[in-house]
Amino acid sequence: MTVTAPRGFRAAGVTAGLKSSGAPDVALVVNDGPDATAAGVFTANRVKAAPVLWSQQVLRGGVVRAVVLNSGGANACTGSPGFQDTHATAEYTASALTGSAGRLILGAGDVAVCSTGLIGERLPMDRLLPGVRAAVRGLSRSGGQAAAEAIMTTDTRPKTTVANGSGWTVGGMAKGAGMLAPAMATMLCVLTTDAVAGPEALDAALRAACRVTFDRIDSDGCMSTNDTVLLLASGASGIAPTDLELAAAVTAACHDLAQQLIADAEGATKQIAIDVVGAADEDDAVEVGRAVARNNLVKTALFGNDPNWGRILAAVGTTRAIFEPDAVDVAVNGVWVCRSGAAAEDRSTVDLSGRDVTIRIDLHAGRRSATVWTNDLSHAYVHENSAYST
Amino acid sequence: MTVTAPRGFRAAGVTAGLKSSGAPDVALVVNDGPDATAAGVFTANRVKAAPVLWSQQVLRGGVVRAVVLNSGGANACTGSPGFQDTHATAEYTASALTGSAGRLILGAGDVAVCSTGLIGERLPMDRLLPGVRAAVRGLSRSGGQAAAEAIMTTDTRPKTTVANGSGWTVGGMAKGAGMLAPAMATMLCVLTTDAVAGPEALDAALRAACRVTFDRIDSDGCMSTNDTVLLLASGASGIAPTDLELAAAVTAACHDLAQQLIADAEGATKQIAIDVVGAADEDDAVEVGRAVARNNLVKTALFGNDPNWGRILAAVGTTRAIFEPDAVDVAVNGVWVCRSGAAAEDRSTVDLSGRDVTIRIDLHAGRRSATVWTNDLSHAYVHENSAYST
Repeated sequence: MTVTAPRGFRAAGVTAGLKSSGAPDVALVVNDGPDATAAGVFTANRVKAAPVLWSQQVLRGGVVRAVVLNSGGANACTGSPGFQDTHATAEYTASALTGSAGRLILGAGDVAVCSTGLIGERLPMDRLLPGVRAAVRGLSRSGGQAAAEAIMTTDTRPKTTVANGSGWTVGGMAKGAGMLAPAMATMLCVLTTDAVAGPEALDAALRAACRVTFDRIDSDGCMSTNDTVLLLASGASGIAPTDLELAAAVTAACHDLAQQLIADAEGATKQIAIDVVGAADEDDAVEVGRAVARNNLVKTALFGNDPNWGRILAAVGTTRAIFEPDAVDVAVNGVWVCRSGAAAEDRSTVDLSGRDVTIRIDLHAGRRSATVWTNDLSHAYVHENSAYST
Repeated sequence: MTVTAPRGFRAAGVTAGLKSSGAPDVALVVNDGPDATAAGVFTANRVKAAPVLWSQQVLRGGVVRAVVLNSGGANACTGSPGFQDTHATAEYTASALTGSAGRLILGAGDVAVCSTGLIGERLPMDRLLPGVRAAVRGLSRSGGQAAAEAIMTTDTRPKTTVANGSGWTVGGMAKGAGMLAPAMATMLCVLTTDAVAGPEALDAALRAACRVTFDRIDSDGCMSTNDTVLLLASGASGIAPTDLELAAAVTAACHDLAQQLIADAEGATKQIAIDVVGAADEDDAVEVGRAVARNNLVKTALFGNDPNWGRILAAVGTTRAIFEPDAVDVAVNGVWVCRSGAAAEDRSTVDLSGRDVTIRIDLHAGRRSATVWTNDLSHAYVHENSAYST
């Protein structure tokens, strides 16, 4: 049921004709309340798409009553006209919802907007707005799955999740298959909850969750212009969880979606967890994990089923983390192929035939740790990203 | 003639059997003087190969009488035994040269060592030392080309250069085809000159040259454990150039070799110059150029002949350089496909059919500029780096 699992939400997914494939491309998520509190986290890229600039403004008030999302066009690098298109989309959505729901009177400022697809082209508004109209008509308490399908781009499957609190629920959907990077990915994610929570509590929970989930998946090191994660609360359960309970459930939902994103990364044949342990602090552990996750030579070696620990150590050596080069241990799928910075157990005993790979790096510099997730660099990645514009 | 173009140098390249292919794998460059001043620049990677640690010590004295180089093994991540191997190699070379040349009495501390090849494995000393002996016997004033061939790994051709001063000359050889990265590449480079110059002048000239040449080529963003650039001066011309004259000639030699390296990068089908102009300062320009050069989505798009300026802009947006997103212009091969952060000239008019690509990015934030060179990300890159351990 995804975003419609918690009480108080309706959703829809329709085909507006933005994609030449004829696949669904417009999604709508509506919060019927009684509350409409919200929080958002956005791309750290300084080149931000129009819908990101718009939704950041909307979120400032801590209230979001609806989210309209489209695939088939990112509306990024489109200048003022692109921003006007986003504004018009929010305005049209608000007006269509006001007419349809009867109960609520919405303004454009109540509507967040998300877009994903090719950068640098204007959206065909003559197709998008009729799509929004159809989505409003199609809204239902079971529309979460259709919404999750309508935001897909190169994803091979929709990503949805549910995390249960005590008498309340978090639901979510996400898209993203390439451009996954620290400080997020070309990913859109909408999370909903029927918990009672103010904007500050939602913001704290969402930031804590993103920091250890979406911010630690790194598919290809490329940061997108459109990344958006939204958390909407309806309060329909009547239950106000503690900050910790809320953060735990939101983190569980984000973790589940993040793993689905990395599992479906463009052209990946391996799903790689990089566990960095023995770090002086968590930042060091994350920096080392990211350096390994972004190293094309490590990623191609793993695509070739080669437990090339030398390339891993060379990647670790590019960081500013605290460690001594001749103290580092590296294990690949449980075999400690490197001890004290030199060859140890027989690398030929490493089994890399499966899809899951775990690299464990012990810096021997402290007691902190972190895990970063990535995938390999394959022919299919090169093919997908050279043959198609995104 | 490469490293033997300047007077006062002899060189050799022989087959010691370190490579299973039977290709030449040991090179020797000897400075017959009268001077033996030298300078070196080494990898910024904190995981440094044994020969790098050794040669850094040797260079501290500002004197190098011989350089012994091997391909077929990097001697990196080999612990204390690996360092002992390097020491033994220098000692053996010094002793063999003392016996052969008759004139000079060399110590291990006069001999720099460079290695390149697979990380994490010990060198077969029982083959390397006889190779050194054969190289000493083969030394000649015309041995530069053989030396350049003996240091090749995945290079498809040797890289050599000559730059002429007024009555003096700079010669050079280099290897490197992958792992090219800022702060250098898996590259070895030996430059020679018959100019008269002290170690400080050589050091200043070499650093100035590397900063704008080897440090600005970025093949795959991966920094190696073995990078070494050495500059040896024999003084045999009897002419002492000014600091500027020396730096100019050394820079010309390094630029020529750097372009040969990027032209021969593993699996590349495009040679890409990223000209960043209108920057507030040179560091900004270099940071922007590197961010674009390292972006896998930009590199795969160019492999696919797609002038995807949106991906370029997204890469620029990840930097801390001074610029306004809606002020940036981007041209690909002369066509300004992006003006003021949005679509401009027709992207279909960009001709990407050739091997050379120029991306010009105008930040409109000042008057400084820099060029970074890279290549595309191709199927052949993935194949070379997944099928072979390096």
